[in-house]
Amino acid sequence: MRSVSVIGIGETEMGSFPERSLRDMVKEAGNKSIEDSNIEREKIQAIYVGNFNSSYLCGQSHMGPLVSEELNLGNVPTLRTENACASGSLALRQAFISVASGVYDYVLVGGLEKMNHRSTEEVTSALASASDSINEFGIGATFPSLFAMIANRYMYEYKATREMLAAVAVQNHENGFKNPHAQLKKKITIEKVINGFPVAHPFTIYDCSLVTDGAAFLVIGASDLLNKKEKERAVEIIGSGHAGDTLRLASRKDITKFPATIKAAEEAYKMAGIKAKDINFAEVHDCFTMTQIINTEDLGFFEKGDGGPAVLEGKTALDGKIPINPSGGLKSKGHPIGATGLSQVYEAVLQLRGKADDRQVKQADIGLTHNLGGTASTCLVNIFRRLK
Amino acid sequence: MRSVSVIGIGETEMGSFPERSLRDMVKEAGNKSIEDSNIEREKIQAIYVGNFNSSYLCGQSHMGPLVSEELNLGNVPTLRTENACASGSLALRQAFISVASGVYDYVLVGGLEKMNHRSTEEVTSALASASDSINEFGIGATFPSLFAMIANRYMYEYKATREMLAAVAVQNHENGFKNPHAQLKKKITIEKVINGFPVAHPFTIYDCSLVTDGAAFLVIGASDLLNKKEKERAVEIIGSGHAGDTLRLASRKDITKFPATIKAAEEAYKMAGIKAKDINFAEVHDCFTMTQIINTEDLGFFEKGDGGPAVLEGKTALDGKIPINPSGGLKSKGHPIGATGLSQVYEAVLQLRGKADDRQVKQADIGLTHNLGGTASTCLVNIFRRLK
Repeated sequence: MRSVSVIGIGETEMGSFPERSLRDMVKEAGNKSIEDSNIEREKIQAIYVGNFNSSYLCGQSHMGPLVSEELNLGNVPTLRTENACASGSLALRQAFISVASGVYDYVLVGGLEKMNHRSTEEVTSALASASDSINEFGIGATFPSLFAMIANRYMYEYKATREMLAAVAVQNHENGFKNPHAQLKKKITIEKVINGFPVAHPFTIYDCSLVTDGAAFLVIGASDLLNKKEKERAVEIIGSGHAGDTLRLASRKDITKFPATIKAAEEAYKMAGIKAKDINFAEVHDCFTMTQIINTEDLGFFEKGDGGPAVLEGKTALDGKIPINPSGGLKSKGHPIGATGLSQVYEAVLQLRGKADDRQVKQADIGLTHNLGGTASTCLVNIFRRLK
Repeated sequence: MRSVSVIGIGETEMGSFPERSLRDMVKEAGNKSIEDSNIEREKIQAIYVGNFNSSYLCGQSHMGPLVSEELNLGNVPTLRTENACASGSLALRQAFISVASGVYDYVLVGGLEKMNHRSTEEVTSALASASDSINEFGIGATFPSLFAMIANRYMYEYKATREMLAAVAVQNHENGFKNPHAQLKKKITIEKVINGFPVAHPFTIYDCSLVTDGAAFLVIGASDLLNKKEKERAVEIIGSGHAGDTLRLASRKDITKFPATIKAAEEAYKMAGIKAKDINFAEVHDCFTMTQIINTEDLGFFEKGDGGPAVLEGKTALDGKIPINPSGGLKSKGHPIGATGLSQVYEAVLQLRGKADDRQVKQADIGLTHNLGGTASTCLVNIFRRLK
């Protein structure tokens, strides 16, 4: 298998843009990524697109040819991937395999979602279709309530406090405040989180990620085909892992950890030939505050039960031992479902290039992205390093 | 890249089964394919699922973990692919690349769709989301009318007759009559087709494929890992091609041929090291009668304009020069969108194993499957041969 690198990145601002079309977002993010890659458009041999539910939300399926037509990429093969909130990372995973194996040399990978033109009820239904539609959504258990159950059990077993959860939101908003692409650029306090509008106990509105419109695109290519100048800007994908779990949360024995994350991380670390302690920073899937704490344990950054205290102690802050979600995460930057996994990679590449401005982490040699679908029924982990 | 073979196949009967659940179809077709492969369930390392629009039609996205849970396959990675009616073939294509490249050894590939529990209007909307939702469906151009435009232009340019189109339907119904899994097991006549309920001129209801519930699953594996007995039943994927085109039909200069098919076929023939004349039989995407005629030309079985006369002359019949759609095709066997491409492979494998009973083609050394999405905005071509 060949070495594969990210050679171009582009994303839209994340936010509530009911007036923006899918096509407009594709054009902006797609063209930015191709321009950033500095390769001729004709070199792109395939398009992999992550999109969660535009079939329902926008009445538009078959997203691959839409992207190809809007970006004027001709008769290239296209493909849409979907596994809930991990759809974007799935597109990258398959594109990575196709380049690593030599099927293609250069591939465009995109993710997008448009939701804010629909009502809250419609968005809730669209999102809940990623759960077990009969035994979860069908009995009223939407994702906030499912993750709230996880949170309650975790807090009981590991004596985590309400303040620890709230501190995740506070920290991610601190980071997002410094990200021009972030949807919610405002600082918040632990008190504000705890006293926010109640969603599903213990979560208030501030424990939940956002409903976001946005797109993120990458150009990836075989590292050995790059010239010297291209190699200097390229970021290599040194690890990739993908694992799954039951669709239904109730089918699992222990809901305070996510076996799909643990397995995907093991696979990615093994491929990269490194350990969790070698990671300098990570973008992890903070769909809810509780999720981020569990993720940082499942990824091996902290022992089980230590993830909560670590946030309060500042260990996951921008200047901490292992900065988590320097972009602001799904909580402050936003959660444009199909684009989320690729927007994480966008941030990782910016950090590794040393171009993250005010939110640049000090040590940025190796970065990790972690993307979940459903209640961790799907998980993908990627590890990145500068090629040169 | 390693040789990859289909080692197990399973499908449900195709039909209108509003009372059957998605899960029930997954269990039947999935378990059949695993049993047919004769490998232990634990050997399956990943699941690739093609599904077009259960997000909208069934309120169920995130199909990968659903399949994994129903078939008791544990923490394996899963993935859903979608490019309209080619969703199933896309799943196979990605699974093929993942096994050929050595990422996985054994992979379960599935496709499924459930539609008949919804109203005609809802099914029409669901299908039309695979077109350009603004510039096609948005102005009332659903797929029957788009393919009718193609038919009218083709008939004008190549002097094809109404009888030639009708003969496609008659022939596919002849074949489907012999297929126990077919949805419409009844013989029809050219007169019946021409005088059928009008849909979009020149198409009547008999020129159109069916609205079908069904599932088809395959187990694929690395050929070199198979034992002697397994090798005897294995069918090798010797060619694979994938290409695309604009989402919008109006963006193309010539609508009487499909460049995505031509390009995908070239790629597949090149990989297999063969030419069109070496193919013994083919399952091609007969979403409409006209489409089948164009496909047989684009695939190189006939010169441009000769595809229509060839049907009338019996060249594409079961005992013809190049039998097309021995299964009965989308027209008679049925068109369970996400499962369609894999149900084509199911038929190809049966034929190559010599187990197609009454509809067995005489010469079955090399078979081809051809699957379209939208107005040929996506095309995949596979070529198969017995491994031993």
